[in-house]
Amino acid sequence: MAIDLTTLLPKRDDTFVGTMARGLVGSEILRIAAEIRELTAQGRKVCNLTVGDFSPREFPIPTALGEGIARALQAGETNYPPSDGVLDLRQSVQRFYERSLGLKYPLEGIVIAGGARPIIYGTYRTVLNEGDTVIYPVPSWNNNHYAHMMGAKSTEVVTLADQGFMPTVEQLAPLFPSARLLCLCSPLNPTGTMISPEALKAICERIVAENQGRKARGQAPLILMYDQIYWTLSAGQSKHVTPVELVPEMAHYTVFVDGISKSFAATGVRVGWGVGPPAIISRMRDVIGHVGAWAPKAEQIAVARALEDVEGTARFMKTMKHRVEERLEALYQGFEKMRAAGLPVRAISPQGAIYLSVQFDLVGKAGLKTNDEIRKRLLEKASFAVVPFQAFGLKDDTGWFRLSVGAVSLEEIQEALPRVEAVLRSVQGGA
Amino acid sequence: MAIDLTTLLPKRDDTFVGTMARGLVGSEILRIAAEIRELTAQGRKVCNLTVGDFSPREFPIPTALGEGIARALQAGETNYPPSDGVLDLRQSVQRFYERSLGLKYPLEGIVIAGGARPIIYGTYRTVLNEGDTVIYPVPSWNNNHYAHMMGAKSTEVVTLADQGFMPTVEQLAPLFPSARLLCLCSPLNPTGTMISPEALKAICERIVAENQGRKARGQAPLILMYDQIYWTLSAGQSKHVTPVELVPEMAHYTVFVDGISKSFAATGVRVGWGVGPPAIISRMRDVIGHVGAWAPKAEQIAVARALEDVEGTARFMKTMKHRVEERLEALYQGFEKMRAAGLPVRAISPQGAIYLSVQFDLVGKAGLKTNDEIRKRLLEKASFAVVPFQAFGLKDDTGWFRLSVGAVSLEEIQEALPRVEAVLRSVQGGA
Repeated sequence: MAIDLTTLLPKRDDTFVGTMARGLVGSEILRIAAEIRELTAQGRKVCNLTVGDFSPREFPIPTALGEGIARALQAGETNYPPSDGVLDLRQSVQRFYERSLGLKYPLEGIVIAGGARPIIYGTYRTVLNEGDTVIYPVPSWNNNHYAHMMGAKSTEVVTLADQGFMPTVEQLAPLFPSARLLCLCSPLNPTGTMISPEALKAICERIVAENQGRKARGQAPLILMYDQIYWTLSAGQSKHVTPVELVPEMAHYTVFVDGISKSFAATGVRVGWGVGPPAIISRMRDVIGHVGAWAPKAEQIAVARALEDVEGTARFMKTMKHRVEERLEALYQGFEKMRAAGLPVRAISPQGAIYLSVQFDLVGKAGLKTNDEIRKRLLEKASFAVVPFQAFGLKDDTGWFRLSVGAVSLEEIQEALPRVEAVLRSVQGGA
Repeated sequence: MAIDLTTLLPKRDDTFVGTMARGLVGSEILRIAAEIRELTAQGRKVCNLTVGDFSPREFPIPTALGEGIARALQAGETNYPPSDGVLDLRQSVQRFYERSLGLKYPLEGIVIAGGARPIIYGTYRTVLNEGDTVIYPVPSWNNNHYAHMMGAKSTEVVTLADQGFMPTVEQLAPLFPSARLLCLCSPLNPTGTMISPEALKAICERIVAENQGRKARGQAPLILMYDQIYWTLSAGQSKHVTPVELVPEMAHYTVFVDGISKSFAATGVRVGWGVGPPAIISRMRDVIGHVGAWAPKAEQIAVARALEDVEGTARFMKTMKHRVEERLEALYQGFEKMRAAGLPVRAISPQGAIYLSVQFDLVGKAGLKTNDEIRKRLLEKASFAVVPFQAFGLKDDTGWFRLSVGAVSLEEIQEALPRVEAVLRSVQGGA
């Protein structure tokens, strides 16, 4: 007979955990996901635009990648990978960056991890001391949580729709002298917008100037964490740019966050990489090694092969980009039509990633007071599930939401838009 | 033309990283591995007993596990797993523990991660505040590194061969009042020894007594991290026991570290789990979630299936245990014969894991002053590669070494023993 502990143990007892763990705020998106699950269980068909993920039915991984993993397993690639990653994969990433981004990094500047998250965590954990200041724009993804985990001081820069939700050099530069880390992401989760070459270049030039002064004084430089996990998914005429191509001196100060999670629709395959100055990357390898956030060896080998198939990879990425774009466009055009019809909604033209920024301008209308009330109304009345920017660190009820298209079909979008329109009309009518 | 950064960037610049990262000490084992690689490149056949890993040729993973991963990938299991792990796998682990360890945990007490390391890191990170005290025995694996990463105070308890390198209640209990975390591992890496039921029970009773006092005072309890990653690999008559079966009240205070890395010879497949009180595990899920140290979804699903194949799993584990044991026994018997012949060597009878503790009692003989000099002599003269206990936190040159059998064949061992004997004879002869 087993000792039955299933009812014995209390679910929560805050004396058991440290203050950092106690202060971690649960994910807003997971809370919303639970609501959606409940509706779905009742038989409702929900157009689910909440998850920053892919439905494998809509977006399968490259066939060759899955087959490559199976082959590597069969070949016995089942023991520990090196702590900085399988050499073949680091070389493939090196060539991929040289070929596609025009940046040839030394191998010591490339570290592999079990996804892009460990690279973000590793950057924070490697660069920052407790009490150091980190600057990031809001809305942005999870920087608030990482800052909390590090005991870092957060300097949040609120960005506006008219700026494409991207911070400007005017907002950022005055904050540089007291900061150790600046976190940018482009294409940006949650907004689907991209930073312009001009804006990024201006920011980089100020970082280099700031660091020249620090170097002379023997001080720690300001590091830029540049999360480009969505960079292969640019939309329309938008062009992804990197800090290092614009200002080569930035190679000393830039850590790229990247991986296959979005480019290969492979969020659950867990292969990511960090690219940057060896002085940081070599330490990050040690940190990630102790954390143990490694990608499986077979996955690493298969990704190395996939990246070396230059044509196959380009073809896959092109098709995928197209399929993401047609969904984003369908949503955008739908909302533009409603806007043209005088309904209280607007969207930002899709630029990249799998997201669209949409403002449901309903605060103060029909008794709706908060973003969360708007979200609930759309979910209940239109089976249309979206995430308010509050889930990305924004405090104000601005009516702005993230719509993610990775897990829906074009048909689901087309069917849902009239339902949303009906809700907007009813709210405008005061119902 | 790409921007060539390959020679531009300095390899080390300590102003770039924080004090924690700067203070991380590199792995001694990796340093030794580099020496071995060099010899092997010169054509030398080295009996490599240094890596805590498996050679897939000697120890392949279960065939069904590899096939299960391939099938899951084909079925499109490529998107995000839940942050606490795929439900099927948590249920499989629940049943596995009930069936094999006699402990029925609630599902909220089980979290999946990308290997056992993230569970160790997660336990430290969830339970401890900076400056808290953690107790662990030395030699033991990496607790010194984890304590450093947390900024915790380390209270190291040096254990001796006569105790089987296991700490006693007499050593530990006086340290309890000032500690927040106690880390035990059995079977122990690096010694291959196991804690006795009597010794573990005595320790647990004192933890419960300590925590009764703390509860009355509203203080944080003393938590026991019990690393049992090698528990399916007990040798001979040795029986693995858990704190909770001996003292059920310990369910409140015990976090188990476990996974498939050793039981399925699958170190590179990256699936581990933590089992313990939901009050800790639920917070650990949040910590591990932000760190992103998740196991891939396909791997999680395949491991769930493998564990549900009760007979197949039992058969695999039995065969594997036998193959590990015959290697450990061959080494042990070889050294016992040398000892009987008056040579300065002794080994501890194998009890579990993939390790044997061997003392080459050569300090002060033939000009050998340190464990590292002994190690080098054995490597150079006998092509016999071992790791000194210094790699596991021990300071003194006691002549004790870890011998790991996961990556060698029985034949390699048999061929190497006479070479080691020759070195011992020559050292004894004063050469």
